[in-house]
Amino acid sequence: MLTSAKTALLSFAVLLPLAVFLPRMPAAGVSPEYTAKGELQFPTGYRDWVYLSTGYDMSYNPALQSPGHHMFDNVFVNPDAYKSFVEKGTWPDKTMLVLEVRGGEGKGSINQKGSYQGTELMGLEVHVKDEARFPGKWAFFSFDDTKTAKMIPLTADCYSCHAAHGAVDTTFVQFYPTLLPIARAKGTLSKAYQKETGAPQGQ
Amino acid sequence: MLTSAKTALLSFAVLLPLAVFLPRMPAAGVSPEYTAKGELQFPTGYRDWVYLSTGYDMSYNPALQSPGHHMFDNVFVNPDAYKSFVEKGTWPDKTMLVLEVRGGEGKGSINQKGSYQGTELMGLEVHVKDEARFPGKWAFFSFDDTKTAKMIPLTADCYSCHAAHGAVDTTFVQFYPTLLPIARAKGTLSKAYQKETGAPQGQ
Repeated sequence: MLTSAKTALLSFAVLLPLAVFLPRMPAAGVSPEYTAKGELQFPTGYRDWVYLSTGYDMSYNPALQSPGHHMFDNVFVNPDAYKSFVEKGTWPDKTMLVLEVRGGEGKGSINQKGSYQGTELMGLEVHVKDEARFPGKWAFFSFDDTKTAKMIPLTADCYSCHAAHGAVDTTFVQFYPTLLPIARAKGTLSKAYQKETGAPQGQ
Repeated sequence: MLTSAKTALLSFAVLLPLAVFLPRMPAAGVSPEYTAKGELQFPTGYRDWVYLSTGYDMSYNPALQSPGHHMFDNVFVNPDAYKSFVEKGTWPDKTMLVLEVRGGEGKGSINQKGSYQGTELMGLEVHVKDEARFPGKWAFFSFDDTKTAKMIPLTADCYSCHAAHGAVDTTFVQFYPTLLPIARAKGTLSKAYQKETGAPQGQ
């Protein structure tokens, strides 16, 4: 889900601030929806989905310069997919992982140190599993607004990086603290991840 | 919800690591449950509740020394209370705000910079609104395990700090990015918060 820092920064740099207040929708039974042109509809109700984790200033490139501000990445998944993962340790068809980016605020109200999340939505990317639709089963979409998004081309770094390093089925379950133990217990960790970390299955 | 850093550190220092895998329960219609001795039952299904926000190394005391490691604070609320807040900008009776603490991991897998959340649950506190039960309507509980917790005494810093600085009804809505605009629009920001920040209502 988390794209490479380079790709992420490129994406977010051109994103318009998405400060629109998002209406709430029932979360049960959501599926990816597309326009006639194949663009993904904005997953309006994602803040009511199941939360997986948050990263802070994460980067996959040690040489990359800091952007001069702090960033939080919050990840959500549609409830049906989450339920299936808890049962089986794998993602079902129609899984949607949403990466929401917010800036880190420092001093403010009574906070003196560290960071809390700002009200402005700085970026939103979706990783969709739609087996019949995408050649590699999964696709990434990056939203510039809260309407629709084009698919990120398969040549982008995010695809190869997720394929090479994702702990489960091209997704970064290694960064989702409640799901990693499930994948380990169910024996669904990818061979690449096991080799990279020496992490055994079934423990 | 977020207690003062001093209180939080004192609490978390004595918390046993809560590494137990938490079973999942239906989230709808949850209410606080107590033992015969008045201890709060662990909110088992809170990871399926609605996510509000995450803080990173937050501290309300500028003089406090850094603990030598990074900490994430994830906040969840029971779905009924969330739904009510979205409609009215206020918390209903039986609101439960859960603060989950996880350590920040640095380099790991492909991550080179910043932090992601560790699998070990380092602490858990709950802020409960139960109007008939608590003199000030709200109470804090800090869990040492995943079973039950005693109420934190009313003399603790967290009560006075939340009362003096909470943006809405003694809660730190100022740190919950999707709820702050709702409170502002609904005109439910506390007078103390408005005075502290100069933040106008209804905008």
